[in-house]
Amino acid sequence: MTGATFEEIAIVGIGLIGSSLARAAKETGAASKVSLYDRSEAVRDTASSLGLGDVSDSLAETCRSADCVLLCVPVGAIEETMRDIAPHLKPGAIMTDVGSVKESALNAMQAHCPAHVHLIPGHPIAGTEKSGPKAGFASLFRGAWHILTPIPQQDEAYNGAVDRLAAFWERLGARVEIMDAARHDRVLAITSHLPHLIAYNIVSTAYDMESVGEGEVVKYSAGGFRDFTRIAASDPTMWRDVFLNNKDAVLETLGRFSEDLAALQRAIRWGDGDMLMREFERARGIRKAIIEAGQDTDETNFGRNAPDKKD
Amino acid sequence: MTGATFEEIAIVGIGLIGSSLARAAKETGAASKVSLYDRSEAVRDTASSLGLGDVSDSLAETCRSADCVLLCVPVGAIEETMRDIAPHLKPGAIMTDVGSVKESALNAMQAHCPAHVHLIPGHPIAGTEKSGPKAGFASLFRGAWHILTPIPQQDEAYNGAVDRLAAFWERLGARVEIMDAARHDRVLAITSHLPHLIAYNIVSTAYDMESVGEGEVVKYSAGGFRDFTRIAASDPTMWRDVFLNNKDAVLETLGRFSEDLAALQRAIRWGDGDMLMREFERARGIRKAIIEAGQDTDETNFGRNAPDKKD
Repeated sequence: MTGATFEEIAIVGIGLIGSSLARAAKETGAASKVSLYDRSEAVRDTASSLGLGDVSDSLAETCRSADCVLLCVPVGAIEETMRDIAPHLKPGAIMTDVGSVKESALNAMQAHCPAHVHLIPGHPIAGTEKSGPKAGFASLFRGAWHILTPIPQQDEAYNGAVDRLAAFWERLGARVEIMDAARHDRVLAITSHLPHLIAYNIVSTAYDMESVGEGEVVKYSAGGFRDFTRIAASDPTMWRDVFLNNKDAVLETLGRFSEDLAALQRAIRWGDGDMLMREFERARGIRKAIIEAGQDTDETNFGRNAPDKKD
Repeated sequence: MTGATFEEIAIVGIGLIGSSLARAAKETGAASKVSLYDRSEAVRDTASSLGLGDVSDSLAETCRSADCVLLCVPVGAIEETMRDIAPHLKPGAIMTDVGSVKESALNAMQAHCPAHVHLIPGHPIAGTEKSGPKAGFASLFRGAWHILTPIPQQDEAYNGAVDRLAAFWERLGARVEIMDAARHDRVLAITSHLPHLIAYNIVSTAYDMESVGEGEVVKYSAGGFRDFTRIAASDPTMWRDVFLNNKDAVLETLGRFSEDLAALQRAIRWGDGDMLMREFERARGIRKAIIEAGQDTDETNFGRNAPDKKD
């Protein structure tokens, strides 16, 4: 592709994802002009000094002439921000987001989005444990999945807008997948939301072990704990909103997790080594599938993360 | 140090740790001669072809003239192996192990270790998710902690042996720490054993979600799940033995984890965003401490592991 996919995009919310989007759109030429807005003045100043694009202190100004507005705020802030953006969107523009929960994001946006705008929710399966405009980088979406959850049974113009938005993300290096919003939320509950909740929880439990000092937890974190602290360093606001907005799927998944854990606990208490072996062997299968699917590399230097020995 | 710390060491069990030890001892010159034994003929053949040292098919032969015997078998195999080694140890030799549980390892070894041998249990906080002799590498212990849990109140000769064993591990690049066996088991229960159990469990739960296909779990694993599958790929036999042999500390830690998780679950159900924020904020503190203590680097390319966004 030689021309830009969008003449002008507007990025609202300049955190890790917003700033990565700005960099990627510029680097790949997917957008000719990148306008940015953040409600925090400090963040706007940082974005300006980083040269991420045309930073404005007016949300209206930022969105007025955009062909595509990308909402990059935590899920809990989507409705309010959408309400503020709505009057300023031009007819035929695409309105999308990057929220980790899609049903509630769709509802929050639909409540305010004007009819003359194509509303297409989205979610990039990409990120790091860092936050803020400085944490962004242009290659964040390269090789990552981007899930779009368009509204079903729309007209041809809408379908054309979905194709165009997909082309935009593909240009940033992402692989685009179309999915129903409710299904997205169930899939992500197990592949992302539960793992984060568990990571937060284990770090919390370690904090409170009065028989083990915090110093010792830190010192011997290479035994496996360290990986959890990395996941648990992710942005608290974003994750609070994820759990509050994907409540049903998370509670359902969490219920199953706790049941399964109780069974392992019972096997440990009663010394059922065969049951433990069976469960542990099974886990290797999924790891193998992930490596074969190219979702991770076997060459990762896992370093000193697990005291794993064998005779 | 110019001369070797030990004239001859014997490594019994040639897995990830045993083969790494052989490579490290040779590369650093910490031992002049490295003798190896594994009960599996296939593993012995692999070790021979890798040139790890003098591989013998006789356990007696391997241990007879060793100044230090390093038992590198799963915790559950320690007692039986120790019984077989015992008659062949020379007076004044050091007998140690690398088991992830130290109280049961001490008891298992003490039951058979002759009085003329210095029994000093140990545990390197090092490993990867790989297993077997080919997985080993010389730098595995570099910068890692090695915990020794010597028997208290022994004579001067014993204390000298502890110093010598510590010097050996330091020569391989490890940082040595002396600790009581029971305390070791409590500390490792939270920093290593529980994280592994949780990782195995979440992978297992994902496997059984009939509303989410295995293909989807694999495809969107970058959302956080992938890190758990890596930990859960660790050797099943080793981990079964860890849980069976550190039962009390693991069950105590697991009980606390489940309590804490129930509180988070309740907060999600009742929409208590403040409680979630408070817990998630806390988790960042431990991550910061780990980075400051140099136990991990902030520069790690966490890549696409967490859909972490912020406005």
